[in-house]
Order: sequence, then structure tokens, then C-alpha cells
Amino acid sequence: MEISVVRQVLDVNDTMSEENRQYFTQQGVYVFNLMSSPGSGKTTLLTKILMRLKPEIRAAVIVGDVCTTNDADRLAVTGVPVVQITTDDFGGDCHLAAHVIRKAAKELDLTDIDLLIVENIGNLVCPAEFSIGEDSKGVVLSITEGEDKPLKYPLMFRVCDVAILNKMDLVPYLDADPDLAVKNMLTVHPEMPVFKTSATKETGLDEFIDWLKAQMAKKAQAAK
Amino acid sequence: MEISVVRQVLDVNDTMSEENRQYFTQQGVYVFNLMSSPGSGKTTLLTKILMRLKPEIRAAVIVGDVCTTNDADRLAVTGVPVVQITTDDFGGDCHLAAHVIRKAAKELDLTDIDLLIVENIGNLVCPAEFSIGEDSKGVVLSITEGEDKPLKYPLMFRVCDVAILNKMDLVPYLDADPDLAVKNMLTVHPEMPVFKTSATKETGLDEFIDWLKAQMAKKAQAAK
Repeated sequence: MEISVVRQVLDVNDTMSEENRQYFTQQGVYVFNLMSSPGSGKTTLLTKILMRLKPEIRAAVIVGDVCTTNDADRLAVTGVPVVQITTDDFGGDCHLAAHVIRKAAKELDLTDIDLLIVENIGNLVCPAEFSIGEDSKGVVLSITEGEDKPLKYPLMFRVCDVAILNKMDLVPYLDADPDLAVKNMLTVHPEMPVFKTSATKETGLDEFIDWLKAQMAKKAQAAK
Repeated sequence: MEISVVRQVLDVNDTMSEENRQYFTQQGVYVFNLMSSPGSGKTTLLTKILMRLKPEIRAAVIVGDVCTTNDADRLAVTGVPVVQITTDDFGGDCHLAAHVIRKAAKELDLTDIDLLIVENIGNLVCPAEFSIGEDSKGVVLSITEGEDKPLKYPLMFRVCDVAILNKMDLVPYLDADPDLAVKNMLTVHPEMPVFKTSATKETGLDEFIDWLKAQMAKKAQAAK
């Protein structure tokens, strides 16, 4: 009973996600859905990446949280348009659903935007099940979370097109092996591109940005 | 529509949680539900705590994961009985529900157990909504996740009776303020006891254990 209800909710979401995808494509916007556990460093990472994308790529961000506008405030310093969603009004939803993204996107002037990044709610489980109309999905894992997380939360790593292993600057102080973390990611998703970064020390960012730009170029090429 | 369905699922869970609670009380078992984000150090913390509880307190653990039996394997070295639940068979559930706990508890001989610790699935959102028949709930926050998490995920910190701020040994290498993390916890839940620990360096564990023992003693006293 519970499972069939969940299935229904997911089916509705899939339909709306597909509508979003067509809409964003018509507008010439590439959409990237970024997910992770709480505290993996998504917002710091995005802030640094957004600064490097300018002025070549015109980006915007939709950021989801259960509560607070902290992340939007932090992202706003980059000068890119930011829309904050707080799901507390929707019963504290643990993921961003396609209908929520559609509503949020209405607050952006998409004709001026090449890249829309969605910073999803901190949760390594539920957001993996909800497509939002994105062109690609990425997951950030902080090396402080331990190497085994890809094996314990495989769906997230399986649905993502790219992974970022963040907080690499802390490796010397941890009993954690980044190569094993990457190996575990590739066990659940062979050949997925993985980038090792430190958002605070700004290492590895350009390699990821190059990957993202290549995806955007591919989509633009296909649209011609 | 979606919200009313969710409400129904929660009501069913509440009823079964209350039945669990009566059952555990009859068996003379104190139940502690431990929650957190993925990778906060719950399993390492529990392993160290379980070693210190022996032989005075006879403990058992039910551990939940979406996939893998890694945590059960790590906990098993303590010699206490461990039951692993993997929710992948239930569609990858993002929390442990009361009916799942009831089923898992059947695999334990409760007459030999004083304390049942439930290590919930790594998720700072959903498990907060699902009681399992526990006497108290605790949340572990790793200081590596940042100080703002209590404000961003307030329900979790509001429903918990105790909080543990873990990985304190990493503070020197982070741009994070543990006192601010504690302050934010107390903003959403005034007067909640908070313990600062390092599971790997084994600091702060006894203070938390004393708190847990005091709760167990209170329940035993009330039952007389």
C-alpha cells in the first residue's frame, strides 16, 4: 500500500520533470542538479565555481533547504541570480520535486541564463529518486564522511553523471583513503567521472568546470 | 493530496511506535534511537561506547542502512548482539519505521538485554518524523558538517533529547566554531544536553554514557 502510493508520487514527478526538461531546453538553459549529504561543502564549492564561470557563462542558482536562507545569502555574494526554496512550507520535504523547481524557475529570467544549477537539499537518499528536469546530476561526497558511502547509498551514485570528492585538504588529518572512496564510487557506477576538490583551498575546481562546460557544449551542439 | 497520504503513513507509524514502546517497557529494555547525516561517525562512536558499557550494561544494536552490512560487521567486533536492517528490500527507505524495528527486535533475546540502541539510516531529515518506540532520541552532528546544520534541519534537533557534537579532534583543521554549533542547537532546542566528543580519540564518551545511564535509571525507577 505504502509502496504503491510512493510509486504514484514518483510517476507524477517523472511526468513533470520531463515537461521541465523540454521547457528548459526551449529556453536554451542547461540544468545541473547538485546533491549530497548535509555539510559536504556544496555551497562553498558553488560559490567558488560561480566566480570562475563569470563572465563566460551566465549562471543562476536555485537552492533548496528545509529551513533558513543561509545558503542563498552565501551564494548571493557571487552576484548571480539566486532563488531560495525552503521546504518547511511543504511539510519539511526532504528533496526538491519537479513542481517546486518549475515554480522557482518562474522567478528567473531564463533568456539571460545559460546554466541553471540546482543545489538540492542535504540528503544522500531521497533526492536521488526525484528528477527535476535536469540535463545532468552530480553528487558531492566529503572525504570526512568516509570511503564507504557510495556502497551504502548506491542509488545516489548510480543516478549521477559526475561525482566530486570534496574537502581533500583534510585528508592528512583523517583515517580515510580517497582512492578507496573513488574506487567505491566506480564500483556502483563504472566509468563515472570523479573530481577531487578542496572548495576552501580552491583545488580541482577547473577540472570539474571543464567537464561541465563540455556537457553544455554537447547539448548546444545537439540542439542545432 | 500528497500531504494527506504522508499524514496517514505517519499516523500508522505512531500507533505502532506506541505498541513497540509498551512492548520494550514490559521487557525491561531501554531503547535509544541514534540519528545523524551520513558519515557523522555514529558507528565508530557506538563501537567505542559499547566497549565501555560492558559488562555493567547488557546492550544490543539494531543498525539500519540502505545497503551493505558494513556497520553491523564493525559493531559485531564489540561482541554485543547486532541485527542489521537493509531497507533496499523496502524500496530503499530513507528511515527506519516502527514496523521494521518490531520485526528486527524479534531476532534478539530481549530478556538478556538492558539497552537497545538503534543506529538509524544516515539522514538528517526523514528519520526525525518516524518514532520507533524509543525512550529517547539522540542526534550526532560532525563538526566537519558546519555550525549551521541545527538551523537548517531544525526538526531533527527539536525532536532529540540529546545531541553529540563529534569529530572534535578535527576542529584545528577546520574553519568551524564548535561553540556556535552548540549555540545553534540550543536555539532550536533550549536546554538540550550536548556532549562534545571525538570517537576516534575517545574523548567525551564517558560524559555521554553517564547521561544515558541516568536516563535508564530514571525509567527503571518509574517502573517500580
